Amino acid sequence: MNINGKHFRTVWIKKHDPGIIEIIDQTKLPFQFDIIELSTLESVEIAITEMQVRGAGLIGATAGYGMYLAALSADPANFHGELEQAGQRLKQTRPTAVNLQWAVDIQLDIIKNCLTKEDCINATFKTAQQIADDDAMMCKKIGENGLSLIEELGKNKQGGPINILTHCNAGWLAFVDYGSATSPMYAAHDAGMDIHIWVDETRPRNQGARLTSWELLQHGVPHTVIPDNTGGHLMQHGLVDLVITGADRVTKTGDAANKIGTYLKALAAYDNNIPFYVALPSSTFDWSISDGIEEIPIEQRDASEVKNMLGFKDGKENSFLIMPQDSKAANYGFDVTPSRLITGLITEKGICSASEDGINALFSHH
Amino acid sequence: MNINGKHFRTVWIKKHDPGIIEIIDQTKLPFQFDIIELSTLESVEIAITEMQVRGAGLIGATAGYGMYLAALSADPANFHGELEQAGQRLKQTRPTAVNLQWAVDIQLDIIKNCLTKEDCINATFKTAQQIADDDAMMCKKIGENGLSLIEELGKNKQGGPINILTHCNAGWLAFVDYGSATSPMYAAHDAGMDIHIWVDETRPRNQGARLTSWELLQHGVPHTVIPDNTGGHLMQHGLVDLVITGADRVTKTGDAANKIGTYLKALAAYDNNIPFYVALPSSTFDWSISDGIEEIPIEQRDASEVKNMLGFKDGKENSFLIMPQDSKAANYGFDVTPSRLITGLITEKGICSASEDGINALFSHH
Repeated sequence: MNINGKHFRTVWIKKHDPGIIEIIDQTKLPFQFDIIELSTLESVEIAITEMQVRGAGLIGATAGYGMYLAALSADPANFHGELEQAGQRLKQTRPTAVNLQWAVDIQLDIIKNCLTKEDCINATFKTAQQIADDDAMMCKKIGENGLSLIEELGKNKQGGPINILTHCNAGWLAFVDYGSATSPMYAAHDAGMDIHIWVDETRPRNQGARLTSWELLQHGVPHTVIPDNTGGHLMQHGLVDLVITGADRVTKTGDAANKIGTYLKALAAYDNNIPFYVALPSSTFDWSISDGIEEIPIEQRDASEVKNMLGFKDGKENSFLIMPQDSKAANYGFDVTPSRLITGLITEKGICSASEDGINALFSHH
Repeated sequence: MNINGKHFRTVWIKKHDPGIIEIIDQTKLPFQFDIIELSTLESVEIAITEMQVRGAGLIGATAGYGMYLAALSADPANFHGELEQAGQRLKQTRPTAVNLQWAVDIQLDIIKNCLTKEDCINATFKTAQQIADDDAMMCKKIGENGLSLIEELGKNKQGGPINILTHCNAGWLAFVDYGSATSPMYAAHDAGMDIHIWVDETRPRNQGARLTSWELLQHGVPHTVIPDNTGGHLMQHGLVDLVITGADRVTKTGDAANKIGTYLKALAAYDNNIPFYVALPSSTFDWSISDGIEEIPIEQRDASEVKNMLGFKDGKENSFLIMPQDSKAANYGFDVTPSRLITGLITEKGICSASEDGINALFSHH
């Protein structure tokens, strides 16, 4: 999407220099816009580990390019062995990121069939580009499918913008382009519709206040950041027409694990008869799980993310204590929204109900 | 309650110096514990305006003492006129604080019947003490009434602490002592019960993370601070046995206006069959209102409270930007929890259902 009027992806080959990959340093956003050059496997490992790139789609695409960079510098006499090692190293950078494992395995399969290092460079380059293009295309389709929902709401709206609430960052910064939850919003905005986004700040890491706000601001989409406590009140008073969130994992029955707090917004939407949609590429389905609340493990992260907060002052960013040092804090990363609270799922294949039947009708071949 | 093992109220007459009122400077908590001396009407006005004292009960009690300080320094020849003016000035410090108006009016009524300045000093002193004592006693009774609920839950609990979730600060720091929502918790803890409190941080002003955590820590009550997004997940997994919040205004039908986000926790408690209680002194009832969502006006505060956050670093506290300066933010102060989601109301008179019949049975004389 656009940054200051210019189109960007989150990861790309440097212009006139195919030996360098460029990314946006997301740890510096929203207070600083820095582009980082990656030219070695090590720099890709650091980018993923330090969360300069984050989000399922973007991590996968960056790992794809990482395998290409590893191929560039491999010893021609032992490139199969070296790249096998490179793949294992990349997989260790975020062990639970499914897209990371998936992208590395695709590249390793391709590499197996390469006879020379030159072949291998060409093949991994092409595959890395394909992984990134596919990610962007899938998100674009989510946007096209979600757009129809927003157009429908627009027909019934008597003046004023269509208000859409979102939680966390399922934006283009988490993918290669467009995003999942944000893709229908960009599609509606680019189609000239009058929309306004309520952005949950999304404590403790504030991906909404820091990243979703920044990307909407850069692309020119009207939006307002709100504390996570606010959405229920807005819904009670007719100030939300639609909720769209992303998901980290969706069961075959339509339960959706997403950033902590999503479940509370789903309850409020249900209580106020407001449509609540989850947007996801089909790679987010976990076909092995039926009961999300019982079966999806919820990561507990370090309490320091709750006790301290990143803030900007006098031209630089720092971490600040925001509660008594001697009080305990807990940091659950995700919660599970049961399918009964979800109006539907927006995927690249179309929209379906959050139910085993609905999902099977759209993905009969999985 | 206790601070570092020593009993404190939030406002009191200085030992050996009845010309001075002392308060805890709540703007410095939790990073610094300062006691401020108030000896003039002006210092009381500043204490209330700058929120060195905050919370309905405490503001009322401090204003009561403020009228006594004004009496001390009044011109004997014109003390009626001067104190009338002092009352008007105090009422302007927080125009929407009902308890403030109420306490000042009680003192003004007393002053009318005083024949000399000496009479007036004695009478306003006695009345100020009475207002403070009554506030503490009322909160103590809320604690005794709420304790029975916790004891009941304890009987059914198979090991482990009784987990109580609370939102914002309806603690002793908001009253003269004990608090409303916290009073049953202190009563249970002091009775030797094994309890643990989940403290919602309560964005945007973080009264939970800053004040509730601090007062529980000082009194030795086990607790854990959580982002406001977390409670739903905890309830889904059996980690919350009871929710108790305070209230800013409760309708005659039992709808409760409280800090923004309370409604979301009530929805989650209802969805998981967890008892949700609101604790309040009966002065919090608004007998003129039936429909809380339609009729209670919700204050919108300055967006800077959302865009910036107070944090502590290198021995001092500062305000830090936490989102893009150019993005908009919205700051709704309160929301209304409909009575259908509230299990009951804990008052100084006893516990009743959140319904017109239930409330009338307890307060037939209002």
